[in-house]
Amino acid sequence: MDYYSSQISNLISELARLPGIGTKSAQRLAFHIINMPREQVEKLSSAMVSARNNIHYCKECCTLTDDDICPICASAKRDHRTIMVVENARDLAAYEKTGKYEGVYHVLHGAISPMLGIGPADIRLKELLLRLQKDVDEVIIATNSSLEGEATAMYISKLVKPTGIRVTRIASGVPVGGDLEYIDEVTLLRALDGRIEL
Amino acid sequence: MDYYSSQISNLISELARLPGIGTKSAQRLAFHIINMPREQVEKLSSAMVSARNNIHYCKECCTLTDDDICPICASAKRDHRTIMVVENARDLAAYEKTGKYEGVYHVLHGAISPMLGIGPADIRLKELLLRLQKDVDEVIIATNSSLEGEATAMYISKLVKPTGIRVTRIASGVPVGGDLEYIDEVTLLRALDGRIEL
Repeated sequence: MDYYSSQISNLISELARLPGIGTKSAQRLAFHIINMPREQVEKLSSAMVSARNNIHYCKECCTLTDDDICPICASAKRDHRTIMVVENARDLAAYEKTGKYEGVYHVLHGAISPMLGIGPADIRLKELLLRLQKDVDEVIIATNSSLEGEATAMYISKLVKPTGIRVTRIASGVPVGGDLEYIDEVTLLRALDGRIEL
Repeated sequence: MDYYSSQISNLISELARLPGIGTKSAQRLAFHIINMPREQVEKLSSAMVSARNNIHYCKECCTLTDDDICPICASAKRDHRTIMVVENARDLAAYEKTGKYEGVYHVLHGAISPMLGIGPADIRLKELLLRLQKDVDEVIIATNSSLEGEATAMYISKLVKPTGIRVTRIASGVPVGGDLEYIDEVTLLRALDGRIEL
């Protein structure tokens, strides 16, 4: 990219290392950044560095936070006897957006995947088991409905069952508003198996 | 976004201000940045700030550069008597990638657009006219083939013609490899009007 000056090509190549940003988008972003007000560039840049340096895992649920304990775990309004296990902080945010879940979470930061060499020790499972030594009524497994998510769900349920704590799995089936015609067979069969009495 | 800690939501909202990055992508990027090696975050962040602070217009052709004069204007190998006028630095890069153009450039940083309130004084036209006082053989207008690009081309040609310097416009027509069936009517008519003898 020697038709750009070195600082521009440096910025383009740093931006192009981000996920989902190809060379074209990186170029567009770079030229946008060069034309942005100086303070805004500095705000963006320091937001990155300070988030990277100050964010760590919540000591309780392992979600990303800048406090010792995340706001959800610290809240007295939440039901601390119900733990929903999710793969990552974005999945936690997805359930928080519903505004209806009143329990707390546990963030695994991944799912078991023999293909990618990710074993039970590589995700935050030990931390979950430690939490189960306190008073817990139910563990709701909300890992993704992918191969890895299902394998992780199975693994966790086998670990938790002997403790006598109730273990549940969020339902999988046809999404609300989904048209059966466009839904894959595995989901259709899953929805059939999971049918409920009306 | 109070289901994320303040530093994460701050990073997400700063990222979401970039063009083409919605809330979902900003979330994905933010979590990626938090998990990136610290040095890489610092490299990206300082690349932004230093590009923003050190990049300015080339004194000759107005492209973005960190030198006084950009490498193309400074090169003795280029034909300084042929000036290609482009709307922005990305268009310059597009022609440089062909590796065949040997002249120099002039970057307007925009196009005349009465709709957006961009007049001739808002783009780098004065700088172009100043350059024409030196020895120039030809001005090739390579603004985009959009309404604004065409209006700008017309405007420039009217300014340059009285000086006696040759003014040309890059051809517009069917793109190489383009299937006529999928090409809009305006382009088809333009290609017909611009037909050349074989």
